[in-house]
Amino acid sequence: MTKVSAYAAQNASSPLAPFEIERREVGPTDVQIEILYSGVCHSDIHQARSEWGPALYPIVPGHEIVGRVTAVGGQVGKFKVGDLAGVGCMVDSCQHCDSCAEGLEQYCENGNTQTYNSRERESKALTFGGYSTSIVVREEFVLRVPESLDLKAVAPLLCAGITMYSPLNHWKIGAGHKVAIVGLGGLGHMGIKLAAAMGAEVTMFTTSQGKADDALRLGAHHVIISTDRAAMKAARASFDFILSTVPTTHDLNPYLATLKRDGHLVIVGAIDPVGVHGGQLIVQRRSVSGSNIGGIHETQQMLDFCAEHGIVSEVEMIDMQDINAAYERMLKNDVKYRFVIDMASLKGEPKGESAAD
Amino acid sequence: MTKVSAYAAQNASSPLAPFEIERREVGPTDVQIEILYSGVCHSDIHQARSEWGPALYPIVPGHEIVGRVTAVGGQVGKFKVGDLAGVGCMVDSCQHCDSCAEGLEQYCENGNTQTYNSRERESKALTFGGYSTSIVVREEFVLRVPESLDLKAVAPLLCAGITMYSPLNHWKIGAGHKVAIVGLGGLGHMGIKLAAAMGAEVTMFTTSQGKADDALRLGAHHVIISTDRAAMKAARASFDFILSTVPTTHDLNPYLATLKRDGHLVIVGAIDPVGVHGGQLIVQRRSVSGSNIGGIHETQQMLDFCAEHGIVSEVEMIDMQDINAAYERMLKNDVKYRFVIDMASLKGEPKGESAAD
Repeated sequence: MTKVSAYAAQNASSPLAPFEIERREVGPTDVQIEILYSGVCHSDIHQARSEWGPALYPIVPGHEIVGRVTAVGGQVGKFKVGDLAGVGCMVDSCQHCDSCAEGLEQYCENGNTQTYNSRERESKALTFGGYSTSIVVREEFVLRVPESLDLKAVAPLLCAGITMYSPLNHWKIGAGHKVAIVGLGGLGHMGIKLAAAMGAEVTMFTTSQGKADDALRLGAHHVIISTDRAAMKAARASFDFILSTVPTTHDLNPYLATLKRDGHLVIVGAIDPVGVHGGQLIVQRRSVSGSNIGGIHETQQMLDFCAEHGIVSEVEMIDMQDINAAYERMLKNDVKYRFVIDMASLKGEPKGESAAD
Repeated sequence: MTKVSAYAAQNASSPLAPFEIERREVGPTDVQIEILYSGVCHSDIHQARSEWGPALYPIVPGHEIVGRVTAVGGQVGKFKVGDLAGVGCMVDSCQHCDSCAEGLEQYCENGNTQTYNSRERESKALTFGGYSTSIVVREEFVLRVPESLDLKAVAPLLCAGITMYSPLNHWKIGAGHKVAIVGLGGLGHMGIKLAAAMGAEVTMFTTSQGKADDALRLGAHHVIISTDRAAMKAARASFDFILSTVPTTHDLNPYLATLKRDGHLVIVGAIDPVGVHGGQLIVQRRSVSGSNIGGIHETQQMLDFCAEHGIVSEVEMIDMQDINAAYERMLKNDVKYRFVIDMASLKGEPKGESAAD
């Protein structure tokens, strides 16, 4: 076992604080990664505070991990020491159910192993996430990270990016489609970039006039202020596909009315009840679906797509020591658009990747 | 204009009573049909009582119409006097929007013309439905009715049948699929028959133990009492497709939990809010969709499918004069499974088709 510096919450009401964890020895199929950057996802807050069912404490959040390989097991073929590597929301799955066989480990019928707030399949040891200096992950769940992209801005692709890419990819969005994104945050801003790069005509739904310019700058072709009744009425039956990134209970009906016949509205954040009026579905054979991150193969496809199109997240860098203040700002939507932790801050090293070179 | 006997409601609280209506002269593309049988749909009650937005009075309900052709216009090619004919929920549409061009007149972007409680496109005259002795309909909206089937039991296929057939057909249900139907009524009993004939393994969800035997007799392979928590839990993630026929607000979440990954739940009756928990969709990429009757081409396909498989509705025959009592029984779910009006009762003729031969 290797002792590793981390930040952990010890219970639902304690702030995150320094904590030492143990990482397993590098097994034959494992990859050890020195963590350079770790994105901060809204679900980190939910889970640190035990808001999504009972959390497993101590909890070390973080599932948007980018780093460099520092060791590999004897059977590892895809990675060598010094390679860039990424880890997202999952570090294992059963690997034999129908979903895993189809490369859809996020829907593993036996339950996948989450990067944190979960237990390893055999040892039952708690998993600890990216708010730490190093991690050991089985090769199948380690992503190749393109050298051409700004590394610190790649980290959020591992959750926010794939969460947007997967539904756009699954529902085959491309040129000729009119797509709308609801909510301009960590997920929504990636939705704009990805949908536009896929060739779709992209509209941002936001309640905030202040975000309109940003949405256009990020690549949206149009903005609709969702509280503007006339604009919402003018948009009726105009979209093929809507992605709602709103993370809590919300009324889908105003957005459903803007879908064409056979259009899909996909929610990715709201695990609570959502408002759906049967009539809105029946009159134009519309659908409401959910989508959960993406599979490992699809995540690699997304990273390669981002490299090809020069897509990264908009990030604001913080030190590990700033995490509690960052959480408070996120709860006020005061971040454009993703906090990323520079892990040099936890190593007492100069900031930036130089520490790992 | 031709004077025709009918039954009408004059306002939202009046019972249906005898009323004389006028049918238009038979135009070059029109088919005149002597109505033999008219099914009684739950939506007849909703509309007669102005429960689905303001109804247009006087209202003559009925959109499950079977009869014999008594006259055709000079340009009519598909029908001749003496042929059997059917009319469903629509009698016209714009015929040039994308939906009409695809044969999906039920989703006509300019609004289709309903068989009753609607206005003709040019004359703006009120449309009157099947609770009458005769109707004139443009050829494109008249269905061929197979001679091989029991005519009185064919009538409900024109609404209940197509409302079940269309989603099963659109989502390509067939052999190898596990399908569940929620609710055993006029729609649900057709759902069992059609899904089973398509080759699916069919389960009936019902709250009533008393309906279990009937469901099996009608062709369901399994029955789950939806109030049985253990049975519901055992059914988790087991269905590819669920059709909910429940006509009012209901909680979809217990049923969503029984869908497999990428499974679809389609509602056809509830135009009110339905309970949907975002988490139920996200965890297995499930969908909730709506479906509205079916297009004319698809309705013909359904009738031909029913002829091939010997499928008709289970009916209880009534006289036109019994309609108000029948409505009260329907509101208590006291019908197995569709009332059909023998229109001979309104003509003062002996009952049965003999009157039309």
